Amino acid sequence: QQCDLTGWWENELGSRMHVSAVDSQGNFSGEYHTAVSSAQKPIEPSPLIGSQHLDEDGQCTFGFTVNWKKFSDSTAVFVGQCFAGDGEEEILQTAWLLREKVDSLPSDWKATR
Amino acid sequence: QQCDLTGWWENELGSRMHVSAVDSQGNFSGEYHTAVSSAQKPIEPSPLIGSQHLDEDGQCTFGFTVNWKKFSDSTAVFVGQCFAGDGEEEILQTAWLLREKVDSLPSDWKATR
Amino acid sequence: QQCDLTGWWENELGSRMHVSAVDSQGNFSGEYHTAVSSAQKPIEPSPLIGSQHLDEDGQCTFGFTVNWKKFSDSTAVFVGQCFAGDGEEEILQTAWLLREKVDSLPSDWKATR
Amino acid sequence: QQCDLTGWWENELGSRMHVSAVDSQGNFSGEYHTAVSSAQKPIEPSPLIGSQHLDEDGQCTFGFTVNWKKFSDSTAVFVGQCFAGDGEEEILQTAWLLREKVDSLPSDWKATR
Repeated sequence: QQCDLTGWWENELGSRMHVSAVDSQGNFSGEYHTAVSSAQKPIEPSPLIGSQHLDEDGQCTFGFTVNWKKFSDSTAVFVGQCFAGDGEEEILQTAWLLREKVDSLPSDWKATR
Repeated sequence: QQCDLTGWWENELGSRMHVSAVDSQGNFSGEYHTAVSSAQKPIEPSPLIGSQHLDEDGQCTFGFTVNWKKFSDSTAVFVGQCFAGDGEEEILQTAWLLREKVDSLPSDWKATR
Repeated sequence: QQCDLTGWWENELGSRMHVSAVDSQGNFSGEYHTAVSSAQKPIEPSPLIGSQHLDEDGQCTFGFTVNWKKFSDSTAVFVGQCFAGDGEEEILQTAWLLREKVDSLPSDWKATR
Repeated sequence: QQCDLTGWWENELGSRMHVSAVDSQGNFSGEYHTAVSSAQKPIEPSPLIGSQHLDEDGQCTFGFTVNWKKFSDSTAVFVGQCFAGDGEEEILQTAWLLREKVDSLPSDWKATR
């Protein structure tokens, strides 16, 4: 059974994402509805774009970028792997980095969390 | 002057990437030629896909995913910001995460570097 | 109520640590019993040394180093914060970095996970 | 030639640290003079405590904790490895995590950079 990120996913913070479709190269786009934010403006659903492997064992790794341009200057990236959980449920394990815009190179050290 | 990732970039490890074109949404694709690898198979140029902000100050944040499917099971994500350096040269400051495929959830702790 | 790391703690992977005592500066030492390892040799309890804030609100941040010398060349650092959970239970939220020894500077990029 | 962290070290941001002495277990303490800060109060030299391996090849890994209690609620951890550079100069390659205090568990996601 092949891993396919298409559909809705929710994480433990209550953020949800929707992956529209995965093409034959493994590329996909979608929308990320974050439940948390460090921005001033109200949260809005934000476009995501990424890529996954198409391994047949259902345990593919993947990555995607979320562009928060609708309410902030920041960009986030997520990278992870799909796992088959108990029964039919699939679990995505991910790690992420959030880049905030800084004024100049000397502030670069604190821009990523 | 707007930041535009289109073109060739090289990092301090000798890895190079080519961004083909950035569309009106800030999405882009390209190819990453890594100089370093922890995979068994020989390195091959690998597809990348990502997104950038289109701020007019030339200091946009961006992110992209590299799918190493041509020679490994891994996926990498990069997130960063463009800075105008001395003269006309632009500098990209990035951070990255590399996800390696692991067999099962108990090994998930060590999958990302 | 002041946060005090003294005692036994267990994480979701089954690793346990014992903090012997916290001195008046916030420094402490103890022993880390990891449940997971990427080393060849069998796991052994390993010495830890670190420091915590002594805030009176019980929500102090802290950090510590685990030296895996008994069975590997690696070193790990943990940083986190104490939270009062439901009832009397305290929860430690931590993030970590694991440094593996590499042969030379060109391999430095992959040494930390 | 054994690696020994005793002495003064400076990084590319202009931060300097002084390691007082390394004991027979590899434990050490010292003082970190950071050049950068995200805190409100003025920077002050801050105590550090950590541990290093005592490998005889001079390429030991190490880690240490800096407690910023003199001017903030934060704690940082550094982990790295010593490398012999050209001639006699030693280079420390490190990665770090900075933990800022947050009010409650729902803010934990953004506490570490």
